[in-house]
Amino acid sequence: MSKTVFLINGPNLNLLGKREPAIYGADTLDDVTARCEALANPVGITLRSMQSNHEGQIIDWIHEARDAAKAIIINPGAFTHTSVAIFDALQAFEGFVFEVHISNVHKREAFRHHSYVSARADGVLAGFGVEGYELALRRVISVLG
Amino acid sequence: MSKTVFLINGPNLNLLGKREPAIYGADTLDDVTARCEALANPVGITLRSMQSNHEGQIIDWIHEARDAAKAIIINPGAFTHTSVAIFDALQAFEGFVFEVHISNVHKREAFRHHSYVSARADGVLAGFGVEGYELALRRVISVLG
Amino acid sequence: MSKTVFLINGPNLNLLGKREPAIYGADTLDDVTARCEALANPVGITLRSMQSNHEGQIIDWIHEARDAAKAIIINPGAFTHTSVAIFDALQAFEGFVFEVHISNVHKREAFRHHSYVSARADGVLAGFGVEGYELALRRVISVLG
Amino acid sequence: MSKTVFLINGPNLNLLGKREPAIYGADTLDDVTARCEALANPVGITLRSMQSNHEGQIIDWIHEARDAAKAIIINPGAFTHTSVAIFDALQAFEGFVFEVHISNVHKREAFRHHSYVSARADGVLAGFGVEGYELALRRVISVLG
Amino acid sequence: MSKTVFLINGPNLNLLGKREPAIYGADTLDDVTARCEALANPVGITLRSMQSNHEGQIIDWIHEARDAAKAIIINPGAFTHTSVAIFDALQAFEGFVFEVHISNVHKREAFRHHSYVSARADGVLAGFGVEGYELALRRVISVLG
Amino acid sequence: MSKTVFLINGPNLNLLGKREPAIYGADTLDDVTARCEALANPVGITLRSMQSNHEGQIIDWIHEARDAAKAIIINPGAFTHTSVAIFDALQAFEGFVFEVHISNVHKREAFRHHSYVSARADGVLAGFGVEGYELALRRVISVLG
Amino acid sequence: MSKTVFLINGPNLNLLGKREPAIYGADTLDDVTARCEALANPVGITLRSMQSNHEGQIIDWIHEARDAAKAIIINPGAFTHTSVAIFDALQAFEGFVFEVHISNVHKREAFRHHSYVSARADGVLAGFGVEGYELALRRVISVLG
Amino acid sequence: MSKTVFLINGPNLNLLGKREPAIYGADTLDDVTARCEALANPVGITLRSMQSNHEGQIIDWIHEARDAAKAIIINPGAFTHTSVAIFDALQAFEGFVFEVHISNVHKREAFRHHSYVSARADGVLAGFGVEGYELALRRVISVLG
Amino acid sequence: MSKTVFLINGPNLNLLGKREPAIYGADTLDDVTARCEALANPVGITLRSMQSNHEGQIIDWIHEARDAAKAIIINPGAFTHTSVAIFDALQAFEGFVFEVHISNVHKREAFRHHSYVSARADGVLAGFGVEGYELALRRVISVLG
Amino acid sequence: MSKTVFLINGPNLNLLGKREPAIYGADTLDDVTARCEALANPVGITLRSMQSNHEGQIIDWIHEARDAAKAIIINPGAFTHTSVAIFDALQAFEGFVFEVHISNVHKREAFRHHSYVSARADGVLAGFGVEGYELALRRVISVLG
Amino acid sequence: MSKTVFLINGPNLNLLGKREPAIYGADTLDDVTARCEALANPVGITLRSMQSNHEGQIIDWIHEARDAAKAIIINPGAFTHTSVAIFDALQAFEGFVFEVHISNVHKREAFRHHSYVSARADGVLAGFGVEGYELALRRVISVLG
Amino acid sequence: MSKTVFLINGPNLNLLGKREPAIYGADTLDDVTARCEALANPVGITLRSMQSNHEGQIIDWIHEARDAAKAIIINPGAFTHTSVAIFDALQAFEGFVFEVHISNVHKREAFRHHSYVSARADGVLAGFGVEGYELALRRVISVLG
Repeated sequence: MSKTVFLINGPNLNLLGKREPAIYGADTLDDVTARCEALANPVGITLRSMQSNHEGQIIDWIHEARDAAKAIIINPGAFTHTSVAIFDALQAFEGFVFEVHISNVHKREAFRHHSYVSARADGVLAGFGVEGYELALRRVISVLG
Repeated sequence: MSKTVFLINGPNLNLLGKREPAIYGADTLDDVTARCEALANPVGITLRSMQSNHEGQIIDWIHEARDAAKAIIINPGAFTHTSVAIFDALQAFEGFVFEVHISNVHKREAFRHHSYVSARADGVLAGFGVEGYELALRRVISVLG
Repeated sequence: MSKTVFLINGPNLNLLGKREPAIYGADTLDDVTARCEALANPVGITLRSMQSNHEGQIIDWIHEARDAAKAIIINPGAFTHTSVAIFDALQAFEGFVFEVHISNVHKREAFRHHSYVSARADGVLAGFGVEGYELALRRVISVLG
Repeated sequence: MSKTVFLINGPNLNLLGKREPAIYGADTLDDVTARCEALANPVGITLRSMQSNHEGQIIDWIHEARDAAKAIIINPGAFTHTSVAIFDALQAFEGFVFEVHISNVHKREAFRHHSYVSARADGVLAGFGVEGYELALRRVISVLG
Repeated sequence: MSKTVFLINGPNLNLLGKREPAIYGADTLDDVTARCEALANPVGITLRSMQSNHEGQIIDWIHEARDAAKAIIINPGAFTHTSVAIFDALQAFEGFVFEVHISNVHKREAFRHHSYVSARADGVLAGFGVEGYELALRRVISVLG
Repeated sequence: MSKTVFLINGPNLNLLGKREPAIYGADTLDDVTARCEALANPVGITLRSMQSNHEGQIIDWIHEARDAAKAIIINPGAFTHTSVAIFDALQAFEGFVFEVHISNVHKREAFRHHSYVSARADGVLAGFGVEGYELALRRVISVLG
Repeated sequence: MSKTVFLINGPNLNLLGKREPAIYGADTLDDVTARCEALANPVGITLRSMQSNHEGQIIDWIHEARDAAKAIIINPGAFTHTSVAIFDALQAFEGFVFEVHISNVHKREAFRHHSYVSARADGVLAGFGVEGYELALRRVISVLG
Repeated sequence: MSKTVFLINGPNLNLLGKREPAIYGADTLDDVTARCEALANPVGITLRSMQSNHEGQIIDWIHEARDAAKAIIINPGAFTHTSVAIFDALQAFEGFVFEVHISNVHKREAFRHHSYVSARADGVLAGFGVEGYELALRRVISVLG
Repeated sequence: MSKTVFLINGPNLNLLGKREPAIYGADTLDDVTARCEALANPVGITLRSMQSNHEGQIIDWIHEARDAAKAIIINPGAFTHTSVAIFDALQAFEGFVFEVHISNVHKREAFRHHSYVSARADGVLAGFGVEGYELALRRVISVLG
Repeated sequence: MSKTVFLINGPNLNLLGKREPAIYGADTLDDVTARCEALANPVGITLRSMQSNHEGQIIDWIHEARDAAKAIIINPGAFTHTSVAIFDALQAFEGFVFEVHISNVHKREAFRHHSYVSARADGVLAGFGVEGYELALRRVISVLG
Repeated sequence: MSKTVFLINGPNLNLLGKREPAIYGADTLDDVTARCEALANPVGITLRSMQSNHEGQIIDWIHEARDAAKAIIINPGAFTHTSVAIFDALQAFEGFVFEVHISNVHKREAFRHHSYVSARADGVLAGFGVEGYELALRRVISVLG
Repeated sequence: MSKTVFLINGPNLNLLGKREPAIYGADTLDDVTARCEALANPVGITLRSMQSNHEGQIIDWIHEARDAAKAIIINPGAFTHTSVAIFDALQAFEGFVFEVHISNVHKREAFRHHSYVSARADGVLAGFGVEGYELALRRVISVLG
């Protein structure tokens, strides 16, 4: 797992670029992945990008990361606010975890102000658009040395 | 998607007609579907009926509805009270949404009094037995003109 | 009281059709009554329609219904959220009770999310426009056999 | 289903024995199953052991138990605190239900102090390590006679 | 107002003796009044008994009591829990106030556990059946000397 | 309705000048009306002053104001804190609304710190004694031009 | 136990008549007992009066009442608000229970507004001074027939 | 301090007339001061107007007012909701205090609904635009005689 | 204290076997003790069984256990939910602590859902009937080796 | 009671000097008493030191203090947070009351942040180790003159 | 910084001795300082006394103390309840911190019952009048050896 | 203000690099500024870096930014959680606002989980160490084009 990073996206993020572009921008998840790879590959980091609307699938991937990845960049979507199970899975992962939200969740409904994942994440960012993934990746690059 | 309506049922509703018939009645989901089709077909509406105990599957179907349906009639079962992800998926759907509960959830445990789905639904009904699906469908017929 | 149904409307509903037609529609209470009678009369149900801004008047009518009606369709307006007295009156009525709200109250201010009446009603619906009265009446027709 | 017992484990419990052995011990789920079978088989009880990170899968198994099992021993993991759907599924199961937690959840984060499952379970235990499964099974043996 | 006492009953108490006699007993308000008069008249106290489902009417009577009565025995019914206006009216009355509930409200729904009137009343009793009115009247007789 | 202003007073305010003059002053509602008319009449504003202890009556007057008044100055008394129905009635009124409290409600019981009316009022004042009515009227004069 | 009634007083009530007579009056517990006996004895009821500052002692007495008394009149003092153990003991007593408070606890600190005992008592009264014991006893006499 | 009044404005009010004129109007603090002086000077009242974004500075001025002013008109801006220290300073001031808010704070975010200052102020007004300062001053003129 | 275990029962548990046998079973505390001794004695563990309705007595016993016992099995009864003092005493005990409840407290009143003791106990079980004591003892035997 | 001071210690404080000396120090209650006497005796104050794990005993002592002591220094231990009965007993004591906690309770569990006793005490101190008793005594000496 | 102690007083404490002497006494801050110096100087402790109404100034002084003082005695006044920034500054100070309140804050408004500073302080005292500063200083002398 | 960016740091951040380097790192604010300038200057952005422990000063700087800066990067320190005034000042600023926290505030005390600033910020990040400033600046560079 020489410097592999998992980029995990949660429910509804498969719609990225197709849903409310005024808010979420026109980039798709593939675009995001491509831009992140452009940052990662030159410094010897391999990126694996995945998305699911199934909480169980996300847990399975986090388990897989225990042996396969040194860091996880995760946008848990709505599971951010409801999934203790993903929090527990991340607790069992020993690498770095960075949590990304495209929009500024703090300006939205009150139920989006709490994140189970933040209690495990090393860093959290919200409201930087899809550029947020790249900023989180920059931090991964720094901390992985 | 000329006037297709999705009829989505959430967790445990596969047991309809088998579980506590005194409360939920003796009709199965197939019976419900048949009765709704009897209403829908004569006015040129196609019904697609589906049920799952998996939140992720329900999200996938709602995404599919974005291109395939003009309205969703949904009984989210227990996900009503816990799933922000289904709420987000419905937010990304532009047609009509009607939320149906067979029993009157307001008479039951306090945790059933809040619905994430109601904040997106056009209309909500509870306590009309399985006839509630038909009543919701009548409204769909009205609003679809 | 051979199959009499009371249709009781609470405060401010006398303004129906005059206030914010974009939300509440252009139909007046008289129009609603007429449409309900068109459904009720052919099946031998007599409708009595009444409206008041006075909580005490509404309680009096519910008491009257104990001897005079087999079902009550009620839109308690703002009393929905504040009147324990109407709840108590309905508790003393032994027929069917259906609660109707024209708009989807769950999308409005938090204080509209709780209904004292729902804890007594057999069924509750909100957000179906004035058509909601007719849908509730259809259910009354079903349950009165 | 002559005296079959389902032993259902929820999310992240596939990591048992691999994650934080100081807390959870070195036994794997297979070890747990083996030890439980050693208790069950001599008294004519068949054990079926299953684990999933998918809430929907767990619901499906509980439905299956309706015809196939006389008791369920369940460690719902993180779903304990968030899944109304599993609670509803257990409500539709008529046999005995015992809830097991390996660690003492009452000493952990506040969100682990509430269990939807406890409102349905016949008995609940926490903090007995993996021996807790055997203790619950002893109770099942007693109550099944 | 030489030793006049007002006996004020709030909403739904006109149904006393007709509604759920197992709980409220078979006595009507007239019976209650008669029994109270049997206690009051011999000691020179005049009783005026009144009942209304209209909050405004009850306020008017309390205002009238300012000049006409030395004490009020009040069963505010459901207004107990919701009417700040009756509380304010009682604040403007300078005589004794005793609050009576026929059933033990503390055993019923949580919203019945708070009384605006209790913050003004000299004494409060609940759960003594219709005999409670007589017990309160005995106290009035004591304190009026 | 050429520049008519409704001056509406709620429950218990008929006692003004008679109840606790140390707090509320010696002026009666008639005095208040006279002083307001002295301000209003010279600038061509007609004042209609009314008071009721009945919530329904107040709602009726607000409905009447829809066609008859350009502004409402209202002291809702205790209904301030409990009446969603008055709030709804005021929502249906399109002119200016100013809310007046004679005493400083913020120094009194906690249940007086919330006002349904304030969420609709253009301006709110409390603690200016009966002079508060005149100050509100001065603002009405300004905004009506 | 032919018509024995226990009169149990909780902590600090040994000070009755010595502490704040303006509030609690000049009567001591002995005076109260004597006055209650004067009511009870003529109708064949034996009274046993007891007081303790020890919660455990009060529980012991309630257990004793299971075989020895037909009714308990209890002023639990401060234990009213804190003792689940006394509530449980009373649950195990099958006779009548009446709860008495000398002062109107609803006018005092918020922590005195909740009573564990009220959820078990048949009737509750507060604010009738020491006469409250006699009023409760009158009810006992009625219900014991 | 022969009839001096302090007019104290808190944080961000230096921007008055420059920030969101649609809400706050086009008048600057200097304009407000000038208009207030036009009211005050003819009746022999001297006005001292001051503004600061520093909580400590405002406290210092309130202390100064103890010897120098007979009344304070204060718009504490955001400190309204957070400053116990300003509340304490005002507690140590013995003259009149009137609290002014230009906009109707009750229609804004929930954290603006509580004011520490209101618990000390003689009167409070909100939503009268900058005219509110003049209305408060009129009241000062009345009460200072 | 060579392998002595204290079995401490709190208030009302002296009624075991006499109170509500449908819920608590027909076994008395002596029966429970006998059955536990049958498990303990063969493996060289001495059991000391005690019960009190007095919180202070239970604290004294826990203090005694500091020198005399290697483990405590405690059913604190109602003190579970109210006694910080027992929690503190257990904190000062260095051996194992297991908490037992005969019924499933999670299905009962909300105030029974919190346990001060659970924050100190090594393990907690509820709803296993009186067999729960034996199951806890089995765990003690395991951990004491 | 010429200048007698009661030094009352609540539950678990008999363990002082034996339990967690790193936190509570090595001094026993006897040491504390001796050091306090060394301060008190020279100025003519008699000290009576007592400790109990029984709430009822502590109440009895406080009652005794009514006639026997001019001041009470009390460390109520865990009863601080749960005993309304001790609060009531102290209310009936007319001398000075000082509350002492050895550790800084504000740094510990949230349930230790509220004290019933503080609402009656003249002064409260926490976190000064056993020296806190002496500091409280110094204050007693000052105020007793 | 050979045994320098900072004595920091927060907002409004400059008024000490001038404001409400019945509560706060007649001593000024200078008197307090003088009395503390009389205790400190003989044992080789230098006192620096300072007061500000500006939160920022207090933070600056605490930062200065990092190099200049071995202990801080602080009466944060109203900032006690609102200033996370002072809490953070104290967290960055490595010496002893004692928190002093002249009056017993626990008897005052609810918002004074929480202190951010207490979560950092070694000891806290309230209600000992200005003598509290000296008592805290005595503790400083003890712990500095 | 051709592309000037304000870098504002709040209370205690002057200690950066000196306080708890294990958490906050060894970099000082000057180091941070230097690293940010190295990013900003090449793309024509001028950085102005400032820090204060005074809330009022920070408000003044934000006001200054209205004319002088196109974006603000702010680490409000403890004012994040308490300052409505800074929130209001930022509301009056029309450029971009990014909020930075060095540590992951979501893992710390509950009172750090709410930020007034987040409700105004375009983006928020926490837990990226001092590198967070650079990441925020990268976003500024993107959005300023």
